[in-house]
Amino acid sequence: MIPTTVNGLKQIPYKGVGKYKPKGFKAKPPIRSCTDYPADGNKVVKNLREALKRCGIKNGMTISTHHHLRDGDAMTNLLFDTIKSMGIRNIRWFPSASFPCHKHLIKYLEDGTIHHIEGSMNGPLGRFTSLGKMKGVGVLRSHGGRYQSVQDGEVHIDIAVISAPTADPFGNANGVTGPAACGLLGFALGDSEYADRVIAVTDNLIPFPCVPWQIQGNNVDFVVKIDSIGDPTKIVSGTTQVTKSPDRLLIAEYVARFIEEAGIMKEGFSMQAGAGGTNLAFAVYLHERMKEKNIKARFIRGGSTKYLVDMLEEGYADYILDGQTFDLEGVRSMRDNPNHINTSPFTSYNYHGKGNFSTMVDTAVLGATEVDINFNANVVTHSDGYLLHGIGGWQNCLFSKCTILAVPSFRDRIPVIVKEVTTLCGPGELIDVIITERGIAINPKRKDLIHAVKNSGLPIKSIKDIQEEVYKICGEPQKPKVNKNKVVAIIKWVDGTVLDSVFQVVSK
Amino acid sequence: MIPTTVNGLKQIPYKGVGKYKPKGFKAKPPIRSCTDYPADGNKVVKNLREALKRCGIKNGMTISTHHHLRDGDAMTNLLFDTIKSMGIRNIRWFPSASFPCHKHLIKYLEDGTIHHIEGSMNGPLGRFTSLGKMKGVGVLRSHGGRYQSVQDGEVHIDIAVISAPTADPFGNANGVTGPAACGLLGFALGDSEYADRVIAVTDNLIPFPCVPWQIQGNNVDFVVKIDSIGDPTKIVSGTTQVTKSPDRLLIAEYVARFIEEAGIMKEGFSMQAGAGGTNLAFAVYLHERMKEKNIKARFIRGGSTKYLVDMLEEGYADYILDGQTFDLEGVRSMRDNPNHINTSPFTSYNYHGKGNFSTMVDTAVLGATEVDINFNANVVTHSDGYLLHGIGGWQNCLFSKCTILAVPSFRDRIPVIVKEVTTLCGPGELIDVIITERGIAINPKRKDLIHAVKNSGLPIKSIKDIQEEVYKICGEPQKPKVNKNKVVAIIKWVDGTVLDSVFQVVSK
Repeated sequence: MIPTTVNGLKQIPYKGVGKYKPKGFKAKPPIRSCTDYPADGNKVVKNLREALKRCGIKNGMTISTHHHLRDGDAMTNLLFDTIKSMGIRNIRWFPSASFPCHKHLIKYLEDGTIHHIEGSMNGPLGRFTSLGKMKGVGVLRSHGGRYQSVQDGEVHIDIAVISAPTADPFGNANGVTGPAACGLLGFALGDSEYADRVIAVTDNLIPFPCVPWQIQGNNVDFVVKIDSIGDPTKIVSGTTQVTKSPDRLLIAEYVARFIEEAGIMKEGFSMQAGAGGTNLAFAVYLHERMKEKNIKARFIRGGSTKYLVDMLEEGYADYILDGQTFDLEGVRSMRDNPNHINTSPFTSYNYHGKGNFSTMVDTAVLGATEVDINFNANVVTHSDGYLLHGIGGWQNCLFSKCTILAVPSFRDRIPVIVKEVTTLCGPGELIDVIITERGIAINPKRKDLIHAVKNSGLPIKSIKDIQEEVYKICGEPQKPKVNKNKVVAIIKWVDGTVLDSVFQVVSK
Repeated sequence: MIPTTVNGLKQIPYKGVGKYKPKGFKAKPPIRSCTDYPADGNKVVKNLREALKRCGIKNGMTISTHHHLRDGDAMTNLLFDTIKSMGIRNIRWFPSASFPCHKHLIKYLEDGTIHHIEGSMNGPLGRFTSLGKMKGVGVLRSHGGRYQSVQDGEVHIDIAVISAPTADPFGNANGVTGPAACGLLGFALGDSEYADRVIAVTDNLIPFPCVPWQIQGNNVDFVVKIDSIGDPTKIVSGTTQVTKSPDRLLIAEYVARFIEEAGIMKEGFSMQAGAGGTNLAFAVYLHERMKEKNIKARFIRGGSTKYLVDMLEEGYADYILDGQTFDLEGVRSMRDNPNHINTSPFTSYNYHGKGNFSTMVDTAVLGATEVDINFNANVVTHSDGYLLHGIGGWQNCLFSKCTILAVPSFRDRIPVIVKEVTTLCGPGELIDVIITERGIAINPKRKDLIHAVKNSGLPIKSIKDIQEEVYKICGEPQKPKVNKNKVVAIIKWVDGTVLDSVFQVVSK
């Protein structure tokens, strides 16, 4: 059930993993000339309004922002207050993700300042969208898919507005220093390269050169200084604390044991741990096992947290290849440790590149809102149909050599292991192992893994058995009450095709 | 005297500084898909021949190489031996520069393997070209102009072949480590981004990830391991040793004194010193003056040498923003010092960008083969008409706030200060000061500088006076014996327009 046209643009339906081959050429930004930029390199203009005006802002444009400050972002709300005050309407907002702090923008979705959102909608904006209140259709992409859409010219960004914890007047910018230091700015990299116009907004303007230049001033048109771009302590949001739940700790322990017993944890291995309390706990357990066996990873991938930084600093990993710092220890480490490397969706996830990092990772441990008996998984909606989460790097990480979903078998008496997912975000063929507190299910395709852990004593079960157990405890879950005639959002696959639709939730 | 068509391509004649405005869009490389690249990230193929074959090499293609190893480069000769052995013909060779070590390639210019060279021709290849022996017309560009030509789609690179002192199987590469460490790979950056196919050739293949990745594996198609890419000790070529000549030491001292007396040497200033013995000596003198007055530069630009590294390490500069390491101390510093930053022609010089670094530099001290009484200068030909040098970053650096040419008034009894330059490489309006052992000439446009050094005691003279003095000593120089009907090379300006022609030298 996939629309052929979304927001007036023709869509290609999902063809299967690796089945759709792009044709044609990358997007081509306009050629600029130094004669149109100040020779002294000073691109500072007095405020956001002035910068937007000089960028030629018009109704219907696409404006991008980025979520490095997560729920601590203050700049985006100020940006849209400014856009509203200029009388501009029908903006396509293209954030790399939105957070609860952006509920301020609901009024602009209601009054037509913002036409629709293409990007993750965590929390209130997702709920608003689910209720069918957004004028256009939401488009959800993975981090890699977002880069791909920009690179391929599928999304043309008119103006990229980049929150920069530190910047110089030329527009060089980074996230490792300044009062709102958030680590890196990788989500904005593609935008800075492909957008027609780029504004760097900072609360820490320093003399040229701002080093390192994670964003290059050579791609920036204007620089704006504001009082505060946000609160970096809020990058530590709900998903970046180790769980205290005994069930989840058990899951984390199973994950660590599985990785060891399956022979993945060996000298020079690599792994990626997503955010979320269970995954963080797993990282702690795995670190302990690595210490015991004196095994070192070649690289570990973040979102980085103090747990990954510990591994690096204690010598149990050569490198952290980091896509997003999830806490302030991650920020510190990225600033000070040359082996804590900032990456971008281009290096890590872009499916329309000459390879990317995700396929080289030995194991990725991820979460999900639902997993079904065909190993298909959902990360964006809950079983009640509400769109409450973004895809993040999740789809991209599925390409690891062993993708593990670490999930409780049910949450709040609602099954997580289900017969069929509400929304398809990840095809089962890419998902190798499901680890719950109730047992571990290995995808029948992965005979090698099944064989490897046969005598491990781990509670291996079929996914069907786990699902049936859970249904016995919780009862058969109710189908969400949705209006199948109204698509409120679509889920893109990593290659730009449409994988699934999210439907309007019918309020009771 | 500028041809309207060169190698079959229409040319735009030079319009004046800042007068030509580009239209249109940047080059657009093909979209690729991860499905066509190995999931394990291993892009290593057995040899150059295999890599070229898989790149689809064909007659008439454009192949680029880079000069980070300068006269120590061994890879390019091997590359063309391979191309020859494959029976491929009419290659447009697009090096960032060529050196005497490449005289090996003359036979391939003769036999039609290489059709013509677009890039600097230092020494033997320049002489070959001057004699009218090359099949096509040489095209000389500055480092910035080379990037501009690729970015703007003026030069489409079919295959970029990048010598990488260290690389991983994915194609991530850097110049700071490995037996042939040469510092940075900035000249290859644009090629890696815009070429259809990219081959990384290394003699130091390490496990993924190769950090730092100055070249990103995501832009690389194939990786080839060879025994040796070259001899890094030969990056220290003739232009990277401090002069011992008393005349040139006097020039160097005048330069340092001028910069101090003109008020340029002040807290937080910036400067660029090119290669060449006089410029290196100037850096030593300036460093002494900075120490005396306890003045620190915000940034200094290289080509870096041990003299600039000394400034950085002794705390007289916050940063080196380096375009090219000129000696092994430069390589060491770039590897180990986070304030020794590698830059690229994109950041530093691209005239068709949103500004670049060159215009922000307070003073640039450069050389020249000839300067005339209108402050026009030449860096590529000698007065006998022979094309023996490349433009390098020279044209780009002319955009500094105070451009100083430090030159002897004559060389081997041939005037350097002349009535009219043999080849126009830099328009006089951008050249502020000429410093010779015989006196200092300030461009009459720069009343501010004339005023600033009025009471300095420096030997300020008119450029005409210096020229006349020199002609009295050396005699009126002979016009080169050239065939004005045969253009052997053109000189591009930083914006892609044609500034001047180089004509065939008529052998005696």
